[in-house]
Amino acid sequence: MTGNLSFTLARLAEKLGARLVGNPDQLITGLATLQDAEPQQLAFLANSQYRKFLADTRAGAVLLTEADAEGFAGNALVVKDPYLSYARISHQFDRKPIPVAGVHASAVVAEDAEIDPTASIGPGAVIESGARVGADVTIGAQCFVGARSQIGAGGWLAPRVTLYHDVVIGERVVVQSGAVIGSEGFGFANAGGQWQKIAQIGGVRVGDDVEIGANTTIDRGALADTLIGNGVKLDNQIQIAHNVQIGDHTAMAACVGISGSTRIGKHCMIAGGVGMVGHIEVCDNVFVSGMTMVTRSITEPGAYSSGTAMQPAAEWKKSAARIRQLDTLARRVQQLEKQLEVVTQGPQDSSKS
Amino acid sequence: MTGNLSFTLARLAEKLGARLVGNPDQLITGLATLQDAEPQQLAFLANSQYRKFLADTRAGAVLLTEADAEGFAGNALVVKDPYLSYARISHQFDRKPIPVAGVHASAVVAEDAEIDPTASIGPGAVIESGARVGADVTIGAQCFVGARSQIGAGGWLAPRVTLYHDVVIGERVVVQSGAVIGSEGFGFANAGGQWQKIAQIGGVRVGDDVEIGANTTIDRGALADTLIGNGVKLDNQIQIAHNVQIGDHTAMAACVGISGSTRIGKHCMIAGGVGMVGHIEVCDNVFVSGMTMVTRSITEPGAYSSGTAMQPAAEWKKSAARIRQLDTLARRVQQLEKQLEVVTQGPQDSSKS
Amino acid sequence: MTGNLSFTLARLAEKLGARLVGNPDQLITGLATLQDAEPQQLAFLANSQYRKFLADTRAGAVLLTEADAEGFAGNALVVKDPYLSYARISHQFDRKPIPVAGVHASAVVAEDAEIDPTASIGPGAVIESGARVGADVTIGAQCFVGARSQIGAGGWLAPRVTLYHDVVIGERVVVQSGAVIGSEGFGFANAGGQWQKIAQIGGVRVGDDVEIGANTTIDRGALADTLIGNGVKLDNQIQIAHNVQIGDHTAMAACVGISGSTRIGKHCMIAGGVGMVGHIEVCDNVFVSGMTMVTRSITEPGAYSSGTAMQPAAEWKKSAARIRQLDTLARRVQQLEKQLEVVTQGPQDSSKS
Repeated sequence: MTGNLSFTLARLAEKLGARLVGNPDQLITGLATLQDAEPQQLAFLANSQYRKFLADTRAGAVLLTEADAEGFAGNALVVKDPYLSYARISHQFDRKPIPVAGVHASAVVAEDAEIDPTASIGPGAVIESGARVGADVTIGAQCFVGARSQIGAGGWLAPRVTLYHDVVIGERVVVQSGAVIGSEGFGFANAGGQWQKIAQIGGVRVGDDVEIGANTTIDRGALADTLIGNGVKLDNQIQIAHNVQIGDHTAMAACVGISGSTRIGKHCMIAGGVGMVGHIEVCDNVFVSGMTMVTRSITEPGAYSSGTAMQPAAEWKKSAARIRQLDTLARRVQQLEKQLEVVTQGPQDSSKS
Repeated sequence: MTGNLSFTLARLAEKLGARLVGNPDQLITGLATLQDAEPQQLAFLANSQYRKFLADTRAGAVLLTEADAEGFAGNALVVKDPYLSYARISHQFDRKPIPVAGVHASAVVAEDAEIDPTASIGPGAVIESGARVGADVTIGAQCFVGARSQIGAGGWLAPRVTLYHDVVIGERVVVQSGAVIGSEGFGFANAGGQWQKIAQIGGVRVGDDVEIGANTTIDRGALADTLIGNGVKLDNQIQIAHNVQIGDHTAMAACVGISGSTRIGKHCMIAGGVGMVGHIEVCDNVFVSGMTMVTRSITEPGAYSSGTAMQPAAEWKKSAARIRQLDTLARRVQQLEKQLEVVTQGPQDSSKS
Repeated sequence: MTGNLSFTLARLAEKLGARLVGNPDQLITGLATLQDAEPQQLAFLANSQYRKFLADTRAGAVLLTEADAEGFAGNALVVKDPYLSYARISHQFDRKPIPVAGVHASAVVAEDAEIDPTASIGPGAVIESGARVGADVTIGAQCFVGARSQIGAGGWLAPRVTLYHDVVIGERVVVQSGAVIGSEGFGFANAGGQWQKIAQIGGVRVGDDVEIGANTTIDRGALADTLIGNGVKLDNQIQIAHNVQIGDHTAMAACVGISGSTRIGKHCMIAGGVGMVGHIEVCDNVFVSGMTMVTRSITEPGAYSSGTAMQPAAEWKKSAARIRQLDTLARRVQQLEKQLEVVTQGPQDSSKS
């Protein structure tokens, strides 16, 4: 799958500002792990636990730290942070097709939409009245961009993305296929047992350098806008309800669901499958582990969890049954403590509960 | 984001049947909360806990009850249920583009499909043989409506919605972008360790006044139809498996998954992330809290829950470890009770377990 | 919903290699359960617990075993495995539209894409440079097939499916609407609190006879490919992260999430809503029950579970509170044991914990 893209090691060293050890003319055509690398691939040693693979690697060169470079006989690019350098150089080897500027003949673009001439609008895309598409933006095939929505410079929408009306997206934002931004949130008033729909008249504002995963959904605001901060990274199949606010540089793994009006701070990491109830606040620098149910605000930075550990099903059945009896069990222990107190010394302290 | 739509307070009072207090000529151009409202916006006081914001609101007028209107000096629309009135009036301020009747030139419509002349078929939509689209229906851009499927009067499909063949939808149904209705459910027979696909020959029937959220999926029936009752509201990213039946006016928040052939009653509320196994029945008027795992039928109305409460991760690890030992712990308590009985009075009652 | 397709019982017996009992000319126009079947429908008795419905069924004929056929007076097709025979014959009664070979005029196909003349490319589909579409493949309306992607013979893509570039799919693979294959996985390096995107330069390889459900997402590999084995069945709204490997004939129910680089064996069954962390291994023949959180590798075949059982909400609140105190409770029990030891016999054994 690695491409026919080809660079000399010298060229890569220059791009990364790396110290080159070995043959500057070594051709590099792709990236791989130390274990899998072929002789024309660049590998990286980002974690010293993989140091054992260094001796036997067939890689054409290795990205590593000054410390790890000592005693390594092969070609090397010596850098401060090999993983970050790998991240930066990886884009050179991406075979993702390069979009061509211009509007495809099959796209349907409203007359008053403003499309930067450097932007690329793919086949079958639909862009509605008053929308604005910035410089160097790619709108993939079959995307829908609703009325008055805006996409800042350098954005990349995969095929089949929906932006409803009045969705404002910052610069260099990446949206994966199937994502829906600006859908009408779940707002209903109960009228005698039946549900009366509440128009969702807010929009969505997305900051710069945001990534939005495949089939992720972000609802528009009920009144004010739903807000996604700068540098936020949302994985696939995440659900962001109306009027949620997500702080800068917070990352969420797949299948997270955030209920309406919840506000999450900056630099948080929310693992896969986490659910949060609505109208709570989560402060900055919080880590929530996978599948945790967050039912209250979090006011202290740190790590939080819920759920039970996996067991063989037969043992789990016993645990689950015992959990249902847990209140009774706790009362029985309390009773035992009282009785034992009588036996050993007579009642003196009744403060336990 | 609030629009250039503009109404006098007198006009809004008339629409809502509200008693007007103050200036009937006050222009209202949008809706907002009491705290955020600008001088030309209408706010609402739906919950007395927000009464404290009434004194300082800059709103042009406030929707409130007779009781809350007492002593309020500003413009007011006095109604019985302010939240419901807000819901009703909200649609006046919705800047969602109004569809134009007719079939867009880029849509692909089968010759024998019946499209009401008042319906709007968006760019790139595909409508297959024998489909029927009723009066005042909007089919968004890039939607797919399969063979023989029907959409009743007043329906609204956002862009990029899929209806497979033989999906029958009632009147005034709203479907958000990315939703899929009528997909082939998960039906396989095991043939010596390999899976033999079972054709899914049932359809889907959806009642009137239903809302289906973004990227929600509803599978067609294996034999008979999957059934969604009248007034059902389904949020985003919900999964409804084949032959599920959902009773009238039941609402489900995002990320719920309902397994095959499960039947849910009327007026239930299923919170976000709930999962239900297949082939169970849930009676009317049941509330299930977020992320609950429903593994058996529910025969009594009421509220149900499962899961564990969130803790700091270090404490959670201890709890999780203890849960795995819980059966042993319960046995130890039983043993203690027996021993203590011997100590205090000799064995008399062995019925505890 | 059952069609106007019509077969004699003799013809169906021939197709299934079944022993026919009764009228060979009986017309069969559809399938149904024993309870629902009309006089021209074929029912099946796959589970002896439904034997009670056999006497009163109105079915035109019944698929059943030799044992169950004894004493049944109606028309019958006697087979070894009635459920499997039902699976096989079900496709005869599927009213799913039959695709027409050729490329629809509104599809956008790159000049150098190779489309087999027997393949069907639906309206609005987009097929990019270097893609290859095999014999008898159906590409539904509004699908996107990225550069150099391949779809093997007999494949069927529902409308609105996305295949990114360099996605290789085997033969007879079914993909439901809204599925996304080859999206860019969640790969970011942390650079001083901000996230640097890592290009996802691997692809996806999908085996033969795979089924991929509606709105399911499968990320491309970061370096090497994401791998889906032969005969794997994935239900709706499943998330497969980059570099996951799924063994042959493993089935997953809806809403499962598998984190990056996790490897799952063959013939596993993963129930709905299960989540797995990344970088673990699950051996062959594992069953994981619904909504289980899998946080470690599974090395022994068998059934595994986590989570707590549903309770009425008031009782659940007590259980949840007690779980948070569980470590303390366990220590109190240990203390009781020590004290009681002193009371009954003096300290002798301090090995318990």
